[in-house]
Amino acid sequence: MDHMPIVTSARMISAASVVGKKEKEGPLGGCFDLFDPTDRFGAPSWEMAESEMQRMALNLALKRAELTRGEIDALFAGDLLNQCVGSAYGLLPFAIPYFGIYGACSTSAQGLILASMAVSGGGLERACVVTSSHYCSAERQFRTPVEYGGQRAPTAQWTVTGAAAFAVARGEAGVLISRVMPGRICDAGISDVSNMGAAMAPAALDTLLRFFRATGEEPTDFDLIVTGDLGFEGGAILRELAEAEGYSMTDRHTDCGMLIYDQKRQDVHSGGSGCGCSATVLASHFLPKLQRGELRRILFLATGALMSPDSLKQGASIPGVAHLVELKGGMG
Amino acid sequence: MDHMPIVTSARMISAASVVGKKEKEGPLGGCFDLFDPTDRFGAPSWEMAESEMQRMALNLALKRAELTRGEIDALFAGDLLNQCVGSAYGLLPFAIPYFGIYGACSTSAQGLILASMAVSGGGLERACVVTSSHYCSAERQFRTPVEYGGQRAPTAQWTVTGAAAFAVARGEAGVLISRVMPGRICDAGISDVSNMGAAMAPAALDTLLRFFRATGEEPTDFDLIVTGDLGFEGGAILRELAEAEGYSMTDRHTDCGMLIYDQKRQDVHSGGSGCGCSATVLASHFLPKLQRGELRRILFLATGALMSPDSLKQGASIPGVAHLVELKGGMG
Repeated sequence: MDHMPIVTSARMISAASVVGKKEKEGPLGGCFDLFDPTDRFGAPSWEMAESEMQRMALNLALKRAELTRGEIDALFAGDLLNQCVGSAYGLLPFAIPYFGIYGACSTSAQGLILASMAVSGGGLERACVVTSSHYCSAERQFRTPVEYGGQRAPTAQWTVTGAAAFAVARGEAGVLISRVMPGRICDAGISDVSNMGAAMAPAALDTLLRFFRATGEEPTDFDLIVTGDLGFEGGAILRELAEAEGYSMTDRHTDCGMLIYDQKRQDVHSGGSGCGCSATVLASHFLPKLQRGELRRILFLATGALMSPDSLKQGASIPGVAHLVELKGGMG
Repeated sequence: MDHMPIVTSARMISAASVVGKKEKEGPLGGCFDLFDPTDRFGAPSWEMAESEMQRMALNLALKRAELTRGEIDALFAGDLLNQCVGSAYGLLPFAIPYFGIYGACSTSAQGLILASMAVSGGGLERACVVTSSHYCSAERQFRTPVEYGGQRAPTAQWTVTGAAAFAVARGEAGVLISRVMPGRICDAGISDVSNMGAAMAPAALDTLLRFFRATGEEPTDFDLIVTGDLGFEGGAILRELAEAEGYSMTDRHTDCGMLIYDQKRQDVHSGGSGCGCSATVLASHFLPKLQRGELRRILFLATGALMSPDSLKQGASIPGVAHLVELKGGMG
């Protein structure tokens, strides 16, 4: 039985992004709201720096929406750290009812789906979605500590140091979250942590095909199809796989991991990744374009890889997931 | 601004539980659906055993509800393992749209809140909630490997080897999920991983007080107030804290961590814990009582501790959260 996309009436009423030095120096550097050239954000550990980025992003998103924390019914938040501690400690001071979510780098889209369903269905009046990643905490946890100086493979991606927050509510103003479609877990048998794009591309394809087949729509019905962080390698794989299925989207596909860094000048190999990648690029690059009407209708698919370092050591391959959010600009 | 509980029209239409040897030998052993006296469930690692328990629980819950996997719109699932791999690998074969959640031992209630809001609000027709924990994988990850034979403190709890699945849908049949209230993260400054009950009790108090104050209701309005896994230590702390706030509930409070083991005969010190604790006890002990009308109205509060081993090494204390679900038996 094919699932139809879920229609919602929720809107993104504000957003904010916080990034580190490398992201600020990248091609989108001028878009981001806040940054710290030391990547430390005044915190004594990289993990606590991540928490601080989440606090900064949520504070600014609330300020822009002219909302106090008491007016937010729930937070949907997650990150890459074990037990999602970036979010738990980061958002503790807000004292807002809290849903921890784990979708790896797909967290932004997963949170937007859950928040928009709850707001649109009447369970919540207003909710915020928050997520983050940090290059140094992610390297330490998933690969090797940065101090080790390990060489990076050509297909490796660079974890974005960044956090973003989105406020979602009913109403007439803001970018419409018109339809959403949660992803299924897909495992194509890839077990190379230096090639996450290849591991996640089949999940992005699965969600896109389910969406196009259920609706009868095509890539040309959208201004852009924006994937989360497949990077250059995974992005190329997705376009090729989609082409083979009869959906050509080379002229309107882009990927947040391909946009956030200058591939050659910044030595990032296959591009950016991490929960903070798609979240900050959506918050500060695509949302303003939707608000200004430069983009009318886009598909945003954040992709995540759901393995752990331990599961890989035990011989498992890398399962991926991709959650889809349709956004409509202008007055929707 | 005080949040009111969220009213839902969703019902739990089936549930199933899977446990290990110690749980089967405990006072509720006769209630659980499936068990493996080796705790291995045919898997080569404890982590993969957890995944297998989730598969078994979801399969049985679907069978009981007479539903195929294609009829389920989404899964809400999580566990204690890093990056929630118990759920990701366990539920991969079902190919059902997947929301990963992280609420530590509060996962069952968090999942039921999200599923009931989405089903009640119209976003989803049917959803399943799945969670698990395993003594051996949890000890290895959070404390010391079992082979180390570390001595346990009197306030320590025993992580339940168990998984449960719940199917949630609209309709007339099944136990009504009448009201839900997500918890806020609370940190009372406890940093002793051998006393999780004390770390989580303030979160349970916070949610209960918010519920009673917002509704004007009292403990005597409910047949039972069931907390997740505060255990004997945390349960006593909660009752004392509630008493001090004017809400006496000694005659109607119980805790899944106090029920699942025989404290003296089974040498479990302060009782059971883990995502599987409240989930299996709800699925196999309380739900049948609600279905038979032996219980008419209960509050179920699963509690979770949101720290990681790394955050504790970095000097942080243990933040807790407690999510509340009101369940109505009979025909609701």
